[in-house]
Amino acid sequence: MISAAILGGSGYTGVELMRLLAGHPELELRAVSSRQYRGRAVADIFPSLAGHVSLAFSDADPQTLAGQAEIVFLAVPHQAAMQAVPQILPTNTKIVDLSADFRLRDPDLYEKYYAPHACPQLLSQAVYGLPEFYRREIAAAGLVANPGCYVTSVLLALIPLLSAGLISSRGLIADCASGVSGAGRKEEISLLHGEAHDNFRPYSVSGHRHTPEMEQELSLAAGEEVRLTFTPHLLPIDRGILSTVYALPQNGIGAEHIRSRWLEVYRGEPFVRILDPGRLPSTKAVRGTNTAQLAVETDPRSGLLKIFSALDNLGKGASGQAVQNANLMLGLPESMGLAGIAVWP
Amino acid sequence: MISAAILGGSGYTGVELMRLLAGHPELELRAVSSRQYRGRAVADIFPSLAGHVSLAFSDADPQTLAGQAEIVFLAVPHQAAMQAVPQILPTNTKIVDLSADFRLRDPDLYEKYYAPHACPQLLSQAVYGLPEFYRREIAAAGLVANPGCYVTSVLLALIPLLSAGLISSRGLIADCASGVSGAGRKEEISLLHGEAHDNFRPYSVSGHRHTPEMEQELSLAAGEEVRLTFTPHLLPIDRGILSTVYALPQNGIGAEHIRSRWLEVYRGEPFVRILDPGRLPSTKAVRGTNTAQLAVETDPRSGLLKIFSALDNLGKGASGQAVQNANLMLGLPESMGLAGIAVWP
Amino acid sequence: MISAAILGGSGYTGVELMRLLAGHPELELRAVSSRQYRGRAVADIFPSLAGHVSLAFSDADPQTLAGQAEIVFLAVPHQAAMQAVPQILPTNTKIVDLSADFRLRDPDLYEKYYAPHACPQLLSQAVYGLPEFYRREIAAAGLVANPGCYVTSVLLALIPLLSAGLISSRGLIADCASGVSGAGRKEEISLLHGEAHDNFRPYSVSGHRHTPEMEQELSLAAGEEVRLTFTPHLLPIDRGILSTVYALPQNGIGAEHIRSRWLEVYRGEPFVRILDPGRLPSTKAVRGTNTAQLAVETDPRSGLLKIFSALDNLGKGASGQAVQNANLMLGLPESMGLAGIAVWP
Amino acid sequence: MISAAILGGSGYTGVELMRLLAGHPELELRAVSSRQYRGRAVADIFPSLAGHVSLAFSDADPQTLAGQAEIVFLAVPHQAAMQAVPQILPTNTKIVDLSADFRLRDPDLYEKYYAPHACPQLLSQAVYGLPEFYRREIAAAGLVANPGCYVTSVLLALIPLLSAGLISSRGLIADCASGVSGAGRKEEISLLHGEAHDNFRPYSVSGHRHTPEMEQELSLAAGEEVRLTFTPHLLPIDRGILSTVYALPQNGIGAEHIRSRWLEVYRGEPFVRILDPGRLPSTKAVRGTNTAQLAVETDPRSGLLKIFSALDNLGKGASGQAVQNANLMLGLPESMGLAGIAVWP
Repeated sequence: MISAAILGGSGYTGVELMRLLAGHPELELRAVSSRQYRGRAVADIFPSLAGHVSLAFSDADPQTLAGQAEIVFLAVPHQAAMQAVPQILPTNTKIVDLSADFRLRDPDLYEKYYAPHACPQLLSQAVYGLPEFYRREIAAAGLVANPGCYVTSVLLALIPLLSAGLISSRGLIADCASGVSGAGRKEEISLLHGEAHDNFRPYSVSGHRHTPEMEQELSLAAGEEVRLTFTPHLLPIDRGILSTVYALPQNGIGAEHIRSRWLEVYRGEPFVRILDPGRLPSTKAVRGTNTAQLAVETDPRSGLLKIFSALDNLGKGASGQAVQNANLMLGLPESMGLAGIAVWP
Repeated sequence: MISAAILGGSGYTGVELMRLLAGHPELELRAVSSRQYRGRAVADIFPSLAGHVSLAFSDADPQTLAGQAEIVFLAVPHQAAMQAVPQILPTNTKIVDLSADFRLRDPDLYEKYYAPHACPQLLSQAVYGLPEFYRREIAAAGLVANPGCYVTSVLLALIPLLSAGLISSRGLIADCASGVSGAGRKEEISLLHGEAHDNFRPYSVSGHRHTPEMEQELSLAAGEEVRLTFTPHLLPIDRGILSTVYALPQNGIGAEHIRSRWLEVYRGEPFVRILDPGRLPSTKAVRGTNTAQLAVETDPRSGLLKIFSALDNLGKGASGQAVQNANLMLGLPESMGLAGIAVWP
Repeated sequence: MISAAILGGSGYTGVELMRLLAGHPELELRAVSSRQYRGRAVADIFPSLAGHVSLAFSDADPQTLAGQAEIVFLAVPHQAAMQAVPQILPTNTKIVDLSADFRLRDPDLYEKYYAPHACPQLLSQAVYGLPEFYRREIAAAGLVANPGCYVTSVLLALIPLLSAGLISSRGLIADCASGVSGAGRKEEISLLHGEAHDNFRPYSVSGHRHTPEMEQELSLAAGEEVRLTFTPHLLPIDRGILSTVYALPQNGIGAEHIRSRWLEVYRGEPFVRILDPGRLPSTKAVRGTNTAQLAVETDPRSGLLKIFSALDNLGKGASGQAVQNANLMLGLPESMGLAGIAVWP
Repeated sequence: MISAAILGGSGYTGVELMRLLAGHPELELRAVSSRQYRGRAVADIFPSLAGHVSLAFSDADPQTLAGQAEIVFLAVPHQAAMQAVPQILPTNTKIVDLSADFRLRDPDLYEKYYAPHACPQLLSQAVYGLPEFYRREIAAAGLVANPGCYVTSVLLALIPLLSAGLISSRGLIADCASGVSGAGRKEEISLLHGEAHDNFRPYSVSGHRHTPEMEQELSLAAGEEVRLTFTPHLLPIDRGILSTVYALPQNGIGAEHIRSRWLEVYRGEPFVRILDPGRLPSTKAVRGTNTAQLAVETDPRSGLLKIFSALDNLGKGASGQAVQNANLMLGLPESMGLAGIAVWP
C-alpha cells in the first residue's frame, strides 16, 4: 500500500477524497489534517465514513504530513496551498493540489483574480492535472494542479474541438450550473438549506475565477487567444455540474463531426462518455462518479452548436480527478479506485 | 361577484387558478371540470384547497360551463382548447386560453409545431395575452391566448430592447431552466420524484414548441425576423423559471442603458421588477407570485449582455397572468387578487 | 393603520412577519431592527420582499422601537427577548414575543431548560398565545408569549382530548418532524444545504426544550401532570411540521369520538381544519399558511390512537400565530391578513 | 464468474441490482427482463448505467431466464413472483425473490394482506432472507424471500432485544419514514416530483402490508405473539428509511444494555453499525450502501427506549440485501460487491 495524506480534510473535497481512498486498493490514507476539528474522529464529523475511516483529524503542518505519506492531497483553500507547497516539494513527497494556486501559468493573472502569488517561481513545476490531455506530464510530475470543476466540464467538451479547428474560437459561451457543494462546506448564510433549497439563481456572473483558467487552456488548444463568456448558476442539489456551451461551428461542421472528433480523441478514455445522438447528459447520471458525459446538437434555428457536458463537481470536477492524477503520478492503473457507478434514483 | 369557470382543472395550472380565484375579491369560481375526477371534491385531489374551494369537479362540456360563467379559463392541453373555443365564443362568455392553441398567428406554424389547427379562422380574434404590451387589446378581447411560461420570461426581457434597437436581433440565445410543474401533472416516468429530484438536465433542445412563439413576438418588436437559439433545462424544483439570455448590444450600449430602458417601459407596471445593479434574480424570490424579476450585466470578456429573467412558471408564466388578463377583460383593477408575496424560505 | 415594529428581523420568523405585515390591511410595519444588517435595505437581504418592504434595518433599541409602534414583535432569540420586554412594557406598547422567554410559567423550569430568567416577576403578566384556548386573555394582554412550533402542533391536537378525558394522560408519545427553518437562519454547518438536503434524522431526542412547554399546557388541560415522550426529527424541507402522536384512548373511545370532539371544540375556528375520515395531513398542504390540519386513526393492531397534526412552523407555528395574536390584542378581526392559501405544487 | 439474471428489471430495485452486479467481482449479469422495455438498451432507460451495463431488456419468461443463469433475482411485483417461482425452482437455478410473495409463512395471512397465494405448498421451501439471523438457512436455500425495507430496519433493531427479553413484547411502536423509491417506479400522480417534493406525510397508517411481516419475525424472536403499531411516512428524498421505535424496557434495562446486546449480537457483522452514545443515525449517511445504523436513547421523561434505525430502502432494504443473500447462497464472501460508501454530501 502506498501512503497518502490530506491537508485540510474538513471540506467537501476532503470527505470525497477520504471516501475514494477508503475504497482504493493501493492507496492508504495515513493522516488527515484539520485545524478546526483537530483531535476529533473523522467519522464524528462525516458520519458516512463511520466504519470506513478510523483516523482522527490532526493539526499536522505540511512538512509533518509529507513525512507520513508518499503523496499529499492539498484540500485547503487557495492561498493556503501555496504556503504548503514549498514545504512539501523538497521532501519529494508528491502533491496533488486541489486549490487554484498552481493552475494559472501566469502569476499576474493569478494576482488579478486572487491575490499576489507567494511562490511564482514554482508555477513552472506544476503540471495542469487534466489527465486526458496532460497524461504524460502528470505521470512525471511532483506537483499537479488539479483543475477547477466548471473548468473540467468545459475543457473536456471544447479542447478537442478547438485543437481540430472544428469550432470558432470566438463567441464561445459557457452557461453552467453547479450544485452547492462547489461553494464548499462553509458557514455562510447563502449556503443554508433555507436559502439554496428550491431555488435557482445566477451568481458571480462577471468575472468568476474559473474564467481565466478556462481561457488559458482553451487558448493553448486553439493556438490563439480565446475569450469565453461564462455564467455560473447555483442549483438546489448537492453535487453536479451541467455546462451548456454555445459554439459557432466552422463551415460545414455539424453535430456529427463533433461527435466523431470526441469519439476519436476519447477512444479508450475510461472517464469521458460520448452519448449517442438523441441522448442528453444529466447530473444525476454521474453523481458520485468520476465520469463526464458529453453530447451535442445543432440548433435548427441558428445553426449554433449546443454542447452539453455533465460531471460531478466533487468527482471528475475535484476529488475523483485528484485520485486519477495520483494514480498516474504513482504508476498505478489510472482508473484504480474510481469505478463507482451513480446510484439511481 | 363575477362568475368564472375552469375547463380542465385537474392540472397544475388548474389548481393555481383555483388558488388565485379563491383569494380574488371580485371573481367567484362557479364550476371546474375534469373528466378524470368528475364528481370528486376538489379538496380531495388538492388538499391545499381544503376550506377554500368547496366545489366538486364536474364533467360539464364547454357550452355548459359557458352558461355558468362570465369568463372561462381553458386549462386543458393544446388541441382540446381549440375544440372548446368555437363552442364558447358565440355565448359571449369571455375566454382566457392557457393552452398554446391561439398563441401563434400563423396556422401553418401551429401545424408545424403542434398539429393541424381546427379553427384557423378564429386565430385573428385571439389577442396575445401579455398585458404589458397588449393591455388595450386584451381589455377589448373576447378570447385571450395566455402566453407560454418560458416565452413570458424571455419576452419581458427582450421586447423593450428590440423595439428600441438596443440589441441586435441576431445571435440571441435564451438558456432557460424550469421547475417540473411546467411539464404538467401527468403520469409520466420522467416527472417522478425519483427521476427529477436531485437532477438537472437539458431537454427538447432542438425545436421546443415555445420557440416559434418567442420568435413571433420578438420579430414584431424588432420589426424584422428574429431567430432565437433556445435551450430549456429541467430543474429539481416544483415552480420557477430562470432565463439567462445572451444578446449582442448595439454600438455603445451597456447594461445601464438596458436598465434605463426597462425602467422607462415598465414604470408603473405592478408585476415587472428591475433589480438594482449588482442584484440578480432567483426563482425562490418570485415563487407563488405574479412577479417577474429582470437584471442585466455586461460580460467583461466578450462585451455580450447577460440578461436574467425570473418568474414563477405557474404564476406570471401561466395562471397568474391568466387572472391578470381576466381582470383586464372584465374591467377590474389589473392586479386584483395577485398581491401574493413569495414565502421565504 | 396601526403601527408595528419588529425587534430582530433578520431571521426566518422575521422575514415571515414582514411578509405577513406587508399584506395586512390594518397593520403597517414602521421599523425593523437587526444589529447584523443595520443600514441595509430589507429587500437586499430578503429578495422576496423587494417591492413589498421598503424599509432598511435599523439598530434601534427596544425602547426606540416601542416609541415607533403600537405593537412590537420580538423575533430575537431567547434571553434577548427578556432583556427587551422590561424596556417596552412600561411604554404601553403591546408585545408579541416569539421567543421562549415568557412561555413557561415556572422560572425554575425555564432555568433548567434555558438559563436563569432575568425578570421572573414579569412572567405572570404574559399570556400564552394560543388563541384557540386563550382568546379572551390574549385580547386583554400587553405581553403575549407566542407558542413554540412543535408545541402548537401537539397542543391543538391534544388539549381538547385531555380536557374531555378522551385519552389517557399517560403514555403520550409525540413523534415530530420539522423543516430546517425551525432551527433558524444561522451560520451553522448542520443547516447547510450540503448537510440537510436529501437527509432525515432525529435530533435532541432527550430533552428538547419544547418538552416542558408542551407538558405545561397539556397538564393544565388534563388537570393532572402529563409527561410526554417527544422526539424531533429534521426534514429536508424549508417549512413544515408534521406531528404523529400516539395516545391511549379511554375505554370505548375511538377515532370517531376524537373527531367529534375536535369538530365541536374547533367549530368556527378559522385556522384549525379537521380532515375527513380517510384523509391525512401533509406539510405541503399548509405551507405558507396559518392553518393546522388534524386527523386521527385507530391502529387496528394495538388500539392506540394515531393522531396527525400538520402546520407550517413559520406560519401557525410562529409568525402567522403572532399576527393572529396581534389582531386579537389590537381589536382587529382575528384572521385579518392571514388568508393565504398554500401554493401547490 | 457466476451467471445471474433479473426478472423485471425496470423498477428501482432492478436498477440498483444492476448497479451492484456491475461492480460485483464474481457475479455477472447475463439477462434482464422487462415486458415494458423489451428490446431497449438498459442504459437508455437508466442513464447512470451507460458504460456499465451493455445488455438490452428482454421479454424472456422465467424459465428462459433460469436457463441463462445460476441465480435469478425476482424484481417483479408481488403476485408476479409467485407465478415465476414454480417455473424456476425445478431448474435448480437459485432464486432471490425481492417481492413479498414468500415472506409470510402463513398463506392465510398472505391472502388477508395481499391476495390468495398461488403456490402455498412452496412457502415452506422459502428461507427468510435476513442474513444476520438466517445465515445458515440462506446458504442452503434454493429460494430466499428477501425482506421488506421497513421490516429490515425494524427487525435489525428489535430481534436481539426481544430474543434476550430486554424489552417488553407489548406496546411496541414503529414510527417510520421512507424515501419515495420505496413506492417503486410507477406512473402514479402521488409519486410525481410536484406532489412528493417539499412534502412530508403519513400514509397507509392502518394496515400497511409490512406489519404482518414484522410481527411474524418479532414474534419468533420473542417466543410469543408481538403486535406492532406501525406508521409509515413519505419523505421528500429518493432513498432512505429512518425508523424511530418506542419500546418499554424490562425492569432495570437502560440504553447501555441495549447497546451492549447489539454489540454482542452484531459483532463481526459487516453491515450493522451500532453508533456511539450521543450519535444518531441519518438516512444520508447510509444512502447507496448496504449498511444499517442503530442507536438508542432512554427518554428522560417517560423511561421509554427510543430506538433509531437507518438504512437505504434500496440497499440493505432491498437490492443490497438481495446480493448479500445471493453471495451466501453461492458460497461467495458475504460482503462481496457491497463495499460502497455513501457519498457526502
